[in-house]
Amino acid sequence: MITLRKNIAAMDRYVPGFQPEETGWIKLNTNENPYPPSPKVVEAIQAELVNGGENLRKYPDAGSKEARRVAAELYGVDPSWVIMANGSDELLNNLIRAFADAGDEVGFVHPSYSYYSTLAHIQGAKVVTFGLTADTKIADFPDSYRGKVFFLTSPNAPLGLGFDNTYISELADRCRGVLVVDEAYVDFTNTSAMELVKKHENIVVTRTFSKSYSLAGMRLGLAVARPEVIAALDKIRDHYHLDRLALVAAAAALKDQPYLRSTVAKICATRDWFSAELRQRGYHVHPSQTNYIFAEAPDGDGKRIYDTLFAHKILVRYFSDPLLASGTRISMGTREEMEKTLAVLSELD
Amino acid sequence: MITLRKNIAAMDRYVPGFQPEETGWIKLNTNENPYPPSPKVVEAIQAELVNGGENLRKYPDAGSKEARRVAAELYGVDPSWVIMANGSDELLNNLIRAFADAGDEVGFVHPSYSYYSTLAHIQGAKVVTFGLTADTKIADFPDSYRGKVFFLTSPNAPLGLGFDNTYISELADRCRGVLVVDEAYVDFTNTSAMELVKKHENIVVTRTFSKSYSLAGMRLGLAVARPEVIAALDKIRDHYHLDRLALVAAAAALKDQPYLRSTVAKICATRDWFSAELRQRGYHVHPSQTNYIFAEAPDGDGKRIYDTLFAHKILVRYFSDPLLASGTRISMGTREEMEKTLAVLSELD
Repeated sequence: MITLRKNIAAMDRYVPGFQPEETGWIKLNTNENPYPPSPKVVEAIQAELVNGGENLRKYPDAGSKEARRVAAELYGVDPSWVIMANGSDELLNNLIRAFADAGDEVGFVHPSYSYYSTLAHIQGAKVVTFGLTADTKIADFPDSYRGKVFFLTSPNAPLGLGFDNTYISELADRCRGVLVVDEAYVDFTNTSAMELVKKHENIVVTRTFSKSYSLAGMRLGLAVARPEVIAALDKIRDHYHLDRLALVAAAAALKDQPYLRSTVAKICATRDWFSAELRQRGYHVHPSQTNYIFAEAPDGDGKRIYDTLFAHKILVRYFSDPLLASGTRISMGTREEMEKTLAVLSELD
Repeated sequence: MITLRKNIAAMDRYVPGFQPEETGWIKLNTNENPYPPSPKVVEAIQAELVNGGENLRKYPDAGSKEARRVAAELYGVDPSWVIMANGSDELLNNLIRAFADAGDEVGFVHPSYSYYSTLAHIQGAKVVTFGLTADTKIADFPDSYRGKVFFLTSPNAPLGLGFDNTYISELADRCRGVLVVDEAYVDFTNTSAMELVKKHENIVVTRTFSKSYSLAGMRLGLAVARPEVIAALDKIRDHYHLDRLALVAAAAALKDQPYLRSTVAKICATRDWFSAELRQRGYHVHPSQTNYIFAEAPDGDGKRIYDTLFAHKILVRYFSDPLLASGTRISMGTREEMEKTLAVLSELD
């Protein structure tokens, strides 16, 4: 066998959340949106498919110009501050490739998105994690952090709490490398670090279309950062990274902010109602600014919640990590789905 | 400004072929297929878009199981020998990441696909190129080649000639690293290195859907290699690298081999007719096993061909590299488009 790079041979593959193939499951394990995407997204895809799919024979726009223009307008920046991506995962990957050589340090909070670690290992970078304090600060974060890239998931996954901008600003000042604020869930809250990008040259904000825009199936993300950072990411990405249907879907989704607001409002209302109901039943539910909640059972046995719901064909996310084993992460489905979930949990004691 | 990795700061961005935004151009510059994709591809995408795009809210199959199954059946291998990709570019990128550390050597033939060089530079690998001999062998290729990855574009771009399997076998024996046979254009000829994958543990064959399958706009590729190589590529790729519409398009395209054969036959017939016509007019046309030809003008001025065609809104590819400046690469369009192109070239002398 031909020799792999040592770090590739040594590392494990990242395993994404389970996707059952049979129907009939209530799927609350991967923070998908229970509502379909904006009808305008489907219209835009249909328009690109005209004439027997004739457009598909031609390469897409390598510069994603229209989608960048729409995003730039939405966020009040010049298009040179925006890059589109094949899911925000592509951005996290390429940010490491832009800034961290093999042996360099890449940091993040644990618990958060464990894929950061996989991406750092692919590059041969060194992974350092930091805990969270009770008041949602990073424990023992140095005054001058020397890691090349630090990923801050805000709001945090799987706990659901956001970091405020005063604190993010302070972190940016303490980071000698890049501070990536991964705002996958930001549309479910009312603050964002987007405004900090102009104040701190080392802040990069990443977004995904998988949660609030109901487009997990289309693999779309974007980043906002200084033009020098965007130019570096443009060098590293595959030149035709986004297909024609994804590109028109992205622009259409960003343009339909009223639809986004209406589905987000429904999800937040379900979340707040469901959290209150669980609290009444003795669960400790972390305050959430996302489309999921992290709920700890009265007996502190997260696996028991998971198993009981699983037996009723309701799929949630359980993490065996000792920091998280007392609870489960439950994505917000429709009100009806959450009523069924609540009924099962109400029986559990 | 935060410091980029040295190789990223130093490198240039790859610039893909020009895509005019205004209509009315005959576009023969990026080897796109002049015919639309199989109607079954569009049907499959439409089927995935039912119920207001409801499926798009859910993550795609991270394992591309159905597309891999169809590809494996087509090529007569087990699915563990196949990986799907976001264009073959993703595979070329991840093959370098699997095998070449910073400072390691990555090699390829010059002229061929210059993007290999960009990908090697992103990784910080060292690029070494080899010339071609008059009888389509690699000039001065060592008996024991120590580069970690060698890319062999077969048939070659932009010249159009394939390497035969006896010679590819010999190269595989001489490579201590991986020999990637980039078969982007292989459907336009009748040999393939696919059968060599089982004989040589270091051969990887890559394919694209951008040329013969008329799906440049959908960003699809695949590779066939030993399961250990596929497993390494599965570690490195983004876990959800392919969107739902691309996945169903890939499976549908691979299943419709009669459609593939019919469009390929039309393109090959146009190519052979067009080549003969140009030769009658004193052009030196390299024998082509692809969907393009490399044609040298009687006066050896490739730029003049390019400029003249451009003035008639016909776009072909000119390379300023001294090895290629005597000609232009002309993608095969429809018979009607090539008749117009021939008419312009017939006036030129």
